Amino acid sequence: MSMKIPHRLYLSEDQMPKQWYSLRADMKDKPDPMLNPGTLEPIGEEDLYPVFCEKLAHQEFDDVTRYVDIPEEIQEFYKMYRPSPLIRAFNLEKALGTPAKIYYKFEGNNTSGSHKLNSAIAQAYYAKKQGLKGLTTETGAGQWGTALAEACAFYNIPLTVFMVRVSYDQKPFRKIVMQTFGADIFPSPSDTTNAGRAMLEANPNSSGSLGGAISEAIEKAVTTEGYRYVLGSVLNQVLLHQSIIGLESKIAMEMLDEYPDIIVGCAGGGSNLGGLIAPFMQDKLLGKASPRIIAVEPASCPSLTRGRYAYDFCDTAKITPLAKMYTLGSGFMPSQNHAGGLRYHGMSPILSKLYHDGFMEAVSVEQTKVFEAAAFFAKQETILPAPESAHAIRTAIDEALKCKETGETKTILFGLTGTGYFDMSAYGAYNEGTMTDYIPSDEDLAAGFAALPQV
Amino acid sequence: MSMKIPHRLYLSEDQMPKQWYSLRADMKDKPDPMLNPGTLEPIGEEDLYPVFCEKLAHQEFDDVTRYVDIPEEIQEFYKMYRPSPLIRAFNLEKALGTPAKIYYKFEGNNTSGSHKLNSAIAQAYYAKKQGLKGLTTETGAGQWGTALAEACAFYNIPLTVFMVRVSYDQKPFRKIVMQTFGADIFPSPSDTTNAGRAMLEANPNSSGSLGGAISEAIEKAVTTEGYRYVLGSVLNQVLLHQSIIGLESKIAMEMLDEYPDIIVGCAGGGSNLGGLIAPFMQDKLLGKASPRIIAVEPASCPSLTRGRYAYDFCDTAKITPLAKMYTLGSGFMPSQNHAGGLRYHGMSPILSKLYHDGFMEAVSVEQTKVFEAAAFFAKQETILPAPESAHAIRTAIDEALKCKETGETKTILFGLTGTGYFDMSAYGAYNEGTMTDYIPSDEDLAAGFAALPQV
Repeated sequence: MSMKIPHRLYLSEDQMPKQWYSLRADMKDKPDPMLNPGTLEPIGEEDLYPVFCEKLAHQEFDDVTRYVDIPEEIQEFYKMYRPSPLIRAFNLEKALGTPAKIYYKFEGNNTSGSHKLNSAIAQAYYAKKQGLKGLTTETGAGQWGTALAEACAFYNIPLTVFMVRVSYDQKPFRKIVMQTFGADIFPSPSDTTNAGRAMLEANPNSSGSLGGAISEAIEKAVTTEGYRYVLGSVLNQVLLHQSIIGLESKIAMEMLDEYPDIIVGCAGGGSNLGGLIAPFMQDKLLGKASPRIIAVEPASCPSLTRGRYAYDFCDTAKITPLAKMYTLGSGFMPSQNHAGGLRYHGMSPILSKLYHDGFMEAVSVEQTKVFEAAAFFAKQETILPAPESAHAIRTAIDEALKCKETGETKTILFGLTGTGYFDMSAYGAYNEGTMTDYIPSDEDLAAGFAALPQV
Repeated sequence: MSMKIPHRLYLSEDQMPKQWYSLRADMKDKPDPMLNPGTLEPIGEEDLYPVFCEKLAHQEFDDVTRYVDIPEEIQEFYKMYRPSPLIRAFNLEKALGTPAKIYYKFEGNNTSGSHKLNSAIAQAYYAKKQGLKGLTTETGAGQWGTALAEACAFYNIPLTVFMVRVSYDQKPFRKIVMQTFGADIFPSPSDTTNAGRAMLEANPNSSGSLGGAISEAIEKAVTTEGYRYVLGSVLNQVLLHQSIIGLESKIAMEMLDEYPDIIVGCAGGGSNLGGLIAPFMQDKLLGKASPRIIAVEPASCPSLTRGRYAYDFCDTAKITPLAKMYTLGSGFMPSQNHAGGLRYHGMSPILSKLYHDGFMEAVSVEQTKVFEAAAFFAKQETILPAPESAHAIRTAIDEALKCKETGETKTILFGLTGTGYFDMSAYGAYNEGTMTDYIPSDEDLAAGFAALPQV
């Protein structure tokens, strides 16, 4: 079936996916199992029950179920802000003078401002079903914290958020949004946990890290009756929920008789990228198609392009199980001048495995080039992108410009994960010409690698 | 035709209106003409050419053409962010326990964050067609300035924005958004115009007013070769462009076999309200239907509910023609504690006339009650509303609660004009309990009325 190509294509409610898709079911070589850091033995689903909701722990471990029914209630919530539009970037193409066809899936049309809500509502739902008394989490740039605050408000679940201190200080408005949705916010490191107090003792002026905030949030969850911890990226369960992005995209592209030659997504922990590529990667795993799939990461936090594929802790205080992933070491912190998210030391184990096995590529880009792309895109497409999303824009533009040189009419699909309304300080620095780049030297990275656990 | 009612209804591109609708064509009693403040004689279209684009001046005066073709280029631009969704507030209804059916038209899904882009792109288009070298405008809360910056960026038109100083100081991020789209921003009063210098001389610490910023923007336009001035509300041309909101709403409601019993919109200068109600008011004017139409304004800036229906200047420095409208006097300034927009001293002459002739109602609401409604709405509907939009939410909720008392199943439609991402200081004050209300006394208003021009 084919149709006239609209600027924005919205699926009808009837067309929305009723199941999530799990990539692992189609991976012949599965990601390596999580290990107990003491015994180095693989852990089981039940081992995670003290930390995660049981249903989510199950999703974390189940690597054979291909399609998971989306509970009715979650489907109903999705309908409040989904389907998200698949947008043809007619104006961007024209401004670039490229023969390439550029599509993007825009996930910013909800108050949380990003795709994070897709998993937040799922995790809040399962928490409610289990009768939990509250949840804890961490947030870096603030998108995940906002999304989860929104989801918890919907289900009346108390929420405590540990927000990386540099964001807490620089993004007071993010904090207020979360508070408006009823969440309690602490800057991390905080003096409310042992992990936080240890970090403050080591460095009273610590600006915090995502890994550190994770340590605090987990400690708070496991030491509070009826609480559990939730995470917005990296985990297998998160990629499962985020598959809605790719599934919708694929249906929409089929309606247009299109199939992407190149799929581009920004990659921090991998939640958006893993969701966007899911059904296309399935085609690739099953030998049905062979799109190029490109992960884009900041040059200042290059876990895929310069990290090690190794077992590592998921947090700074080393209280989590070990996961096999591309990592810069659990103590890694992006430099102070790094704007926005995409600041996690590791990467989704699923994506790490796929990258390691050659099913996808990765590039890193510098932030001034990223903001250049963001401002150019905004002027053409009327959407002010989040810095994270702009990483994908940068690479999509670069690929479209290559098509201009070669004259190839490739079809490019990228994920526009969210809006930049809370990142105006960074845009201001870019406008003023005071934004700088930072690429860690090999020496900078060596310490992180040296501290990797011996497995 | 009827269908299962979805959460969000998006028209297809084919269904989008290709013409704007002009309410004046169907008003038996037209609004009174604009007057030259010196001669008190009606002015003509050509008299506005030094200030406005010719085509826009024409639209300002034409009160007989019922439907105006939307130029192809504008239709194409609209398709980048329209149609906006008509949303059924299922969750809000449930939370309120009301038998009422609540729909809202959500105009916040674009970077400008509001409906203002609908007219901004039209005005920028006509400026481009006329070969203008630049545009000037004013902005209060910043929505109009952002929308126009976006539209001017698209057409590569230089733009100078005079931003009410209190907003300039309190909303640095709004400023950065406009700068990212390439606009030059001055706080008003500024020392770059005679009007601004006079205001600074009278009060060096002036926090500015919308009327004052208008004076500066007009002066700058008429004293700069090839420049013209544009305005985001109040004017007839703006209501014409904004009719796209109501036209889309009506088509969507017809698809659902619905017709609103009550239509609610916030009212500052009247751009959103006039657009939302246009085709429904047409039905009312033609005796085809009789929906209640309610304008909601801040208790702190009550032009309809407590103003005079009189000829007045549209700006503070008294350089504009006189318009017959509900007004608090051109020197009126909302109190410092007033958050957000809806701070203009007057009201669209079209809406003023319709209100005066009994075709619509008006209510005023206090801002703490407005933010209470905003926070409640956000938790149910996943959209963080702009303070302006929340005025309509407040009244829609109040009407829905009346239905709960009476058991009536009324259909309520309200306009959700935009998002509150740049209003987090105000949300913060509400969350902290430090937000206050202000209702001007009769004495406060008397000075403004005394200064009205003698016509």
